[in-house]
Amino acid sequence: MADLPDLPTYADVEAAAQRLQGHAHRTPVLRSTTVDRLLGAQLFFKCENLQRMGAFKFRGAFNALSRFTEAQKRAGVIAFSSGNHAQAVALSARLLGMPAAILMPLDAPQSKVEATRGYLGDGGEVILFDRYTQDREALTAHLAAERGMTIIPPYDHPDVIAGQGTAAKELIEEVGELDTLLVCLGGGGLLSGSALAAKALSPRCRVLGVEPEAGNDGQQSFRSGTIVHIDTPRTLADGAQTQHLGQYTFGVIRRLVDDIVTVTDEQLVEAMRFYAQRMKLVVEPTGCLSLAAAFHAGLSLQGQRVGVIVSGGNVDLTRYAGLLGT
Amino acid sequence: MADLPDLPTYADVEAAAQRLQGHAHRTPVLRSTTVDRLLGAQLFFKCENLQRMGAFKFRGAFNALSRFTEAQKRAGVIAFSSGNHAQAVALSARLLGMPAAILMPLDAPQSKVEATRGYLGDGGEVILFDRYTQDREALTAHLAAERGMTIIPPYDHPDVIAGQGTAAKELIEEVGELDTLLVCLGGGGLLSGSALAAKALSPRCRVLGVEPEAGNDGQQSFRSGTIVHIDTPRTLADGAQTQHLGQYTFGVIRRLVDDIVTVTDEQLVEAMRFYAQRMKLVVEPTGCLSLAAAFHAGLSLQGQRVGVIVSGGNVDLTRYAGLLGT
Repeated sequence: MADLPDLPTYADVEAAAQRLQGHAHRTPVLRSTTVDRLLGAQLFFKCENLQRMGAFKFRGAFNALSRFTEAQKRAGVIAFSSGNHAQAVALSARLLGMPAAILMPLDAPQSKVEATRGYLGDGGEVILFDRYTQDREALTAHLAAERGMTIIPPYDHPDVIAGQGTAAKELIEEVGELDTLLVCLGGGGLLSGSALAAKALSPRCRVLGVEPEAGNDGQQSFRSGTIVHIDTPRTLADGAQTQHLGQYTFGVIRRLVDDIVTVTDEQLVEAMRFYAQRMKLVVEPTGCLSLAAAFHAGLSLQGQRVGVIVSGGNVDLTRYAGLLGT
Repeated sequence: MADLPDLPTYADVEAAAQRLQGHAHRTPVLRSTTVDRLLGAQLFFKCENLQRMGAFKFRGAFNALSRFTEAQKRAGVIAFSSGNHAQAVALSARLLGMPAAILMPLDAPQSKVEATRGYLGDGGEVILFDRYTQDREALTAHLAAERGMTIIPPYDHPDVIAGQGTAAKELIEEVGELDTLLVCLGGGGLLSGSALAAKALSPRCRVLGVEPEAGNDGQQSFRSGTIVHIDTPRTLADGAQTQHLGQYTFGVIRRLVDDIVTVTDEQLVEAMRFYAQRMKLVVEPTGCLSLAAAFHAGLSLQGQRVGVIVSGGNVDLTRYAGLLGT
């Protein structure tokens, strides 16, 4: 156990909340009488799809970049991501006035590349690489060393985890203690941060991670007590296509999370349609994991107060229309 | 001028707000840095698509039904509508424990009939009629007389107008005075109620109604000073397919509204896509009128604080997917 990293604590979540004040949106908590009636419970939806850049990822990235030293700020940040982390780092770097380099695969959807460029300021740059011939991690490390830039990973970093925890903190402070909190699980940044907040503010709250059935490395890791690696899973939930948890995220999850459950892609699409039809919210597939679990994971929610983190809403419109129209 | 009805006032909006307390959602006000940058203004979106039953209509219906005498409550309410008013009256009647009859055309979309039935309680009934062979107004009057039920029209009623005004009241109380307020216009319930609230709470605020170009009876009426009747217009904005304003709504609009502008259906669809892509909100075509006008009606919004009422989000998912996917 000697190699375990120093894990973030709830005090770090509180400090992150201070740094995010006035920068992140305090997203609304929505209710649905329909879902309450269907489940015989009270559900509280924390709408991080309405967060800046459309996902909770802004919280973690902004918190991490806010903690840079003056020297780090001058040299800037580097990140690789084809998803929400790219946009989160891009926007945070612009807001904090620091240079940024975002590595994205050459074959990333043009809309995502454009969105990331849109969030970057004049000191920012998208670097496209060929993921079939170039080693992403080596390239990032090389560029970071060459430019003196600091690498911010998408989830396995104490400041990222602490930032993500501020969403659950706001939720519980607004609505009071919860019996169950449902959080989607990819690399574990949101789940571990949420667990830190929930166990501090609502100690009896059951904290559950939700993964796509096809990519249940987190569930396997949780149950076996060691980080399990899998091949990139085939699932609609692109934010949960991670191959393994991180040292920090797993460290928090194994201590504070109560269980990890899974749902199918069909159940995700049903939840996506429910969000659109009944709650008028655009939610990306990964963001639908938590509600899909409330409907389908056999969680015995009757009579409970249930928090549901809606993680994000960034989905290509054509793809979204296709999923709704089926 | 002898026949002019007693028009509702801001005091009626205040009284309606009291009645709605604890029954209507206090809907969130959302911001978009993207739209602010595009328009060089500060826009405040009052999200009535996140209201109960998915539209502002709940406010007016609940307020009107709340004012029934005991005798009226026992006999119940009757309304005709194939849209949001049907669901608003159905839900309000159930919450207030009174019988309700909702007339809908036989060929109304099954999803709307089912939704209305879902909101009705045991004392409620959907009555389908053949709009090609039966006179809707005569049928409603006949049933109302037979059952002693009170007819609540979709817009031309002082209590309905006062209830609709509570959305703009909440908006201005939350964000402060505005320079311009943009409101969609069908029969004029929302626009007249919003104008009552805006002129009381933010007297210098310019209040603008927005109609589909194909159905500009309100604009014609406003400019000519008399209520103009048109054929049912062909437009995606089904909530604005009214043929004429009402006595009450026109009475308020001609006194308090500053102008009425129009947008095309193509501009509505562009706004609908913007809401989905950038703000993660499902907004029905009629609800897109106000934002479409901000983009396209040449309103000189630079440097202004602009309120945008997002009126509702009830749109058939297949139709919505089709519009997004184009």
